[in-house]
Amino acid sequence: MKKVHNFSAGPAILPVDVIKEATQGAIEFNNSGMSILEVSHRGTDFINVMEEARALVKEFMGFGSGYQTLFLGGGASTQFAMVPSNLLQAGKPAAYVNTGVWASKAIKEAKMLGDVNVIASSEDKKFSYVPKGYAVPKDASYLHLTSNNTIYGTQMHSFPESSVPVVCDMSSDIFSRKMDFSKFDLIYAGAQKNIGAAGATVVVVKEDILGKTGRKMFSMLDYAVHIKGESMYNTPPVFSVYVCMLTLKWLKKNGGLAWIEKINDEKAKTMYDEIDRNILFTGTCAKEDRSKMNACFLLTKPELEETFNKMWKDAGISGIKGHRDVGGYRASLYNALPLESVKVLVDVMKEFEKKYADSKVTA
Amino acid sequence: MKKVHNFSAGPAILPVDVIKEATQGAIEFNNSGMSILEVSHRGTDFINVMEEARALVKEFMGFGSGYQTLFLGGGASTQFAMVPSNLLQAGKPAAYVNTGVWASKAIKEAKMLGDVNVIASSEDKKFSYVPKGYAVPKDASYLHLTSNNTIYGTQMHSFPESSVPVVCDMSSDIFSRKMDFSKFDLIYAGAQKNIGAAGATVVVVKEDILGKTGRKMFSMLDYAVHIKGESMYNTPPVFSVYVCMLTLKWLKKNGGLAWIEKINDEKAKTMYDEIDRNILFTGTCAKEDRSKMNACFLLTKPELEETFNKMWKDAGISGIKGHRDVGGYRASLYNALPLESVKVLVDVMKEFEKKYADSKVTA
Repeated sequence: MKKVHNFSAGPAILPVDVIKEATQGAIEFNNSGMSILEVSHRGTDFINVMEEARALVKEFMGFGSGYQTLFLGGGASTQFAMVPSNLLQAGKPAAYVNTGVWASKAIKEAKMLGDVNVIASSEDKKFSYVPKGYAVPKDASYLHLTSNNTIYGTQMHSFPESSVPVVCDMSSDIFSRKMDFSKFDLIYAGAQKNIGAAGATVVVVKEDILGKTGRKMFSMLDYAVHIKGESMYNTPPVFSVYVCMLTLKWLKKNGGLAWIEKINDEKAKTMYDEIDRNILFTGTCAKEDRSKMNACFLLTKPELEETFNKMWKDAGISGIKGHRDVGGYRASLYNALPLESVKVLVDVMKEFEKKYADSKVTA
Repeated sequence: MKKVHNFSAGPAILPVDVIKEATQGAIEFNNSGMSILEVSHRGTDFINVMEEARALVKEFMGFGSGYQTLFLGGGASTQFAMVPSNLLQAGKPAAYVNTGVWASKAIKEAKMLGDVNVIASSEDKKFSYVPKGYAVPKDASYLHLTSNNTIYGTQMHSFPESSVPVVCDMSSDIFSRKMDFSKFDLIYAGAQKNIGAAGATVVVVKEDILGKTGRKMFSMLDYAVHIKGESMYNTPPVFSVYVCMLTLKWLKKNGGLAWIEKINDEKAKTMYDEIDRNILFTGTCAKEDRSKMNACFLLTKPELEETFNKMWKDAGISGIKGHRDVGGYRASLYNALPLESVKVLVDVMKEFEKKYADSKVTA
């Protein structure tokens, strides 16, 4: 198989060992004589997978009893609806920080149910920075944050103090770094960037924040229903959960969050150093808010776009086209992307500069 | 790998060729140098998978323009909420036929939004038959049916006439037989029984029944949002959709619904003939309503349970333990289960009768 440097923004690269194990499970799962695609989710073998995945998430977060982990279908977009359904109380507006497309979507859904107070936003500068220094209202039902902005390439490197429950969409940077997870009361993340395959969404919730709204809601939107069903109220996305479990095991085996943070820091430094050094590129975000997961950058000579595109494609690089809202390029540096791939991209950028920095033609 | 006769009620057996192709895709998808678990859902390769799956569903149903196919996350349980959200109009009660656990759950969710008229039910006899001869109210927003009852082993072999839109949960018998699909306005089915792997739910909807409620709803519950997003409003359950596409292709290549119906009829006949012939077994449902997908049966000498269990397990049979609500046994005979597996089970039942019919001991 040809070597591809996969910088896709999600679904995204997975560890080679995880792909191997997942594939083996798709052939035959746990010596059952059956593929994991064919086994009952109520069988011991899969229940063990689900329980191991749930336990690993809590272990990485340092959470004990009082917290519940769920692996649900429907994507993080369904969480945009579930969060206000379960937490938004009458007369207590929800506080949202608007840092981009995904936060905006979360705000839109919350507004279906009640008052939403957008307490900070970076929309004024096309979401190219992370708002700071805002106060969190003490009467809010909850505060909603988006820790990393996949599209605009910003990331929260610190979090506000809050006296109300803090909800955080960590879809694109979960388990990419050490964190004080105890600052959060509800964390959710689509699996397809850092912890597994598309189709599963992990939710971790502190149980005592639930049950305060008096709102009736559909069973599938009710965290309490899923908690009672031990994350199997209905048939879960079996294979996606399996891939999550394998990816979490891979992370633990290799050294956990401290280990991956060090690698991710090095990848991000390598990437941004080149963006800042190379006269043919420029970053799109405030430097202090740059995401270590998604590095967005533009050509300083846009007329060279096709030339650059040919060069990185020839080097076996895939998935660095920028989101249509930003243009340019986006190199996603998720956990499973090796430093080697970043070096290949940086080498292409250097070579590109060497050849075309002084060029006035489009090659 | 050992030979297993997989009678699981779902997630369930898949065609051997589908497992092979899916596994190949998990190793490398479409010569991309990447696993299908790692590719962007916005890339041409996966868009082609999604579009082929959507087209095949419409092709099997004989639907042209005016109908839309979606592959969504969240399971059929999410459809229990989406159906009333999108179709239940004020002042026009929804009509439901209650044929079991799943229909009951659908009814419960619909009641969250408005009036529900349960126009027929078989709850009086533990859902062991399918109600017939009821009239469908002309003023209903829609009629909701469950074509096959996985737990109790009943199946609708005919459908009521209706002047209002007909919604049908076909989770456990979709594409198991030829049908006049034009009788239905909205069909949904969890993929994990007859058309793929857990994590995806197929929805087919006649577009002109939508947009009549005036109800505001969460984006993820809104069929119109998913239609506009071409079944990719958010990241879809990529691998599950891929397995669906492969399973649908397998079905088409082998001869489609006419081909599979013939095989399914033979499997069901083989199974029920033995249940009726063998003095140690008895069926649980009204004969005329028996499901060709899930054959439920009990021991006439319950004291022989462990003996029988050992015999079928020794024969490499898996997944025939009955649902806790019914007890006994349930042999699920989904599309991918070969006739050979049914014959193995029937042989075990014959052997069991031969050895223990006259026995007064528990062996």
